Amino acid sequence: MRNMETMRWVDGYLEILDQTLLPEKTEYIKCEHYTTVCDAIRRLNVRGAPAIGAAAAYGLALGAAMLKPAGRADFIVAVEQIARDLSATRPTAVNLQWALDRMLGVLRCTGFDNIGVLKEILLSEAHAIYREDLESNRRMGQFGEKLIPQSVAILTHCNAGALATAGIGTALGVIRAAHQAGKSIHVYADETRPLLQGARLTTWELMQDKIPVTLLTDNMAGYLMACGKVDLVIVGADRIAANGDVANKIGTYSVAVLAKEHGLPFYVAAPVSTIDLSIAGGQEIPIENRDEREVTHFAGQQVAPEGVRVWNPAFDVTPNHLVTAIITDRGIAWPPYTETLLVVAGK
Amino acid sequence: MRNMETMRWVDGYLEILDQTLLPEKTEYIKCEHYTTVCDAIRRLNVRGAPAIGAAAAYGLALGAAMLKPAGRADFIVAVEQIARDLSATRPTAVNLQWALDRMLGVLRCTGFDNIGVLKEILLSEAHAIYREDLESNRRMGQFGEKLIPQSVAILTHCNAGALATAGIGTALGVIRAAHQAGKSIHVYADETRPLLQGARLTTWELMQDKIPVTLLTDNMAGYLMACGKVDLVIVGADRIAANGDVANKIGTYSVAVLAKEHGLPFYVAAPVSTIDLSIAGGQEIPIENRDEREVTHFAGQQVAPEGVRVWNPAFDVTPNHLVTAIITDRGIAWPPYTETLLVVAGK
Repeated sequence: MRNMETMRWVDGYLEILDQTLLPEKTEYIKCEHYTTVCDAIRRLNVRGAPAIGAAAAYGLALGAAMLKPAGRADFIVAVEQIARDLSATRPTAVNLQWALDRMLGVLRCTGFDNIGVLKEILLSEAHAIYREDLESNRRMGQFGEKLIPQSVAILTHCNAGALATAGIGTALGVIRAAHQAGKSIHVYADETRPLLQGARLTTWELMQDKIPVTLLTDNMAGYLMACGKVDLVIVGADRIAANGDVANKIGTYSVAVLAKEHGLPFYVAAPVSTIDLSIAGGQEIPIENRDEREVTHFAGQQVAPEGVRVWNPAFDVTPNHLVTAIITDRGIAWPPYTETLLVVAGK
Repeated sequence: MRNMETMRWVDGYLEILDQTLLPEKTEYIKCEHYTTVCDAIRRLNVRGAPAIGAAAAYGLALGAAMLKPAGRADFIVAVEQIARDLSATRPTAVNLQWALDRMLGVLRCTGFDNIGVLKEILLSEAHAIYREDLESNRRMGQFGEKLIPQSVAILTHCNAGALATAGIGTALGVIRAAHQAGKSIHVYADETRPLLQGARLTTWELMQDKIPVTLLTDNMAGYLMACGKVDLVIVGADRIAANGDVANKIGTYSVAVLAKEHGLPFYVAAPVSTIDLSIAGGQEIPIENRDEREVTHFAGQQVAPEGVRVWNPAFDVTPNHLVTAIITDRGIAWPPYTETLLVVAGK
């Protein structure tokens, strides 16, 4: 995975790896306009909370670069509008809003009036967000690796890997760090319906790194645990409330309940930018509902009767009492999360 | 569903509805030889524990009809060999062996020596197994319907419907009976990976009967319950041990754990022919592992990296303590099942 970038800035444009085509095809989408970035986030060409944060930051820099405002105040108003467009693409992952807020904060704070300089400041902040995510993954790996036994089978859900971030990944970053530390690891990857991020992306990433991985359908996770084949669970997160409730890919909650039933640790790995201290609990996290065709069609082919009603939430919320620990880039938070998340978030 | 037969005996041949083509196409497979029946069971053209029991019975009658033995003893030996071939097609659903044992039992008990008569006795017993399953569904519906509240949302997994049986179905038979009794029912159907029996078959059956149904992916069941959208669960079974442990389609166990977590009743509907008193507990039930391509490919298209390792058990075991009640064609069994299953099975 080291030679495959989730996104890259080339000659004044953003190129986004089209993850909907993986693992069959490796193609980048050239984004010359910020609306192409909006589309890429909406269509899941780029996905994973930290990655869409970085993509949105670059999108804002891209949109800003094309503005021809009368002056600084006009520029800021126009950039704020672009930020609103980018923010509206997906509601659940807080990293998207976090990255945009950080970009706008830098813009508003700086004393410069020269529009060219302001544009450069925005691009340089987007680069910083991208670089810091890479470093954040590395630190999460270092902290989290200490929780992983010497010989272990780990279940993960969705893709919280390099493809979801700028670096080695969140959940998969911890797994990679443990693997590099010489531990014997076998990963079980839920395929993660409806869009199969586990089958398409997680298995592919791990196979490239020669980390043993076995694919299973989501509904096999319970029986896998009952058969004693898994020792612990690690997943990523799209938003973590102040009390430690975790929004993540649909199906995460079921896995957490099953982990509890089998007495297995359930770890969440996420950078502090995923923690949203502005909301008290998971019930306040907006959950995105997506197109019914994601469920009724499979590889372009219809698999359910025409006109069938569908429920397709993209995320669910795992209550804090099911979460053993939260591995962040500033250390590991243990319950009670209302106290420890404040510490790691540095508030 | 009343005008769609899972299988039918026409002019000396068995015709099996090819369920792998549903809901797009309605085609019957003409079985002139018992090996075609073996293939149809193995390839899941016909599936569902009661339906494969009936199909195997007809398969035995079909195989027997083509024999030209020297005498009665030769005939029985040859029929026993055909029964072994049919039995070897799938290991988990006990109805398959139950139907074959019943056919062989009748053959061995009868006093006739005339081979033509013996062949007719076998065919007539296959017809009886088919007809009795139809009647058994109706009785299960009558018993089970009493457990269903006046206004209710029900989650089901896989297809335990008309397509899995000769009649109105086991789990779906109970739902149909409650619907016919004027109760207000909304069904949530797990799509049931890897082969999507829920998406393809359950939704289709219920839509034909105008029973409201919503499709979801398997990994959404936990969040569905957490959102308070479901009141109870009903599933079918492939084999029930003497202690009430239930083998059923993979993912059933996860749903049962989730039902317990949310305090929801978890009902199993199955004819007494699904109860296997010869085994004490679920750990003795053989679980079929199926081809990896069922998980890595969809509609001929590859969805996971080439060479990925796959775990693909077709069934799992739900321990008796998670089962609220077992609805049979001879009444409802409540815990302790070691006592009540003996009563309903008439031992």
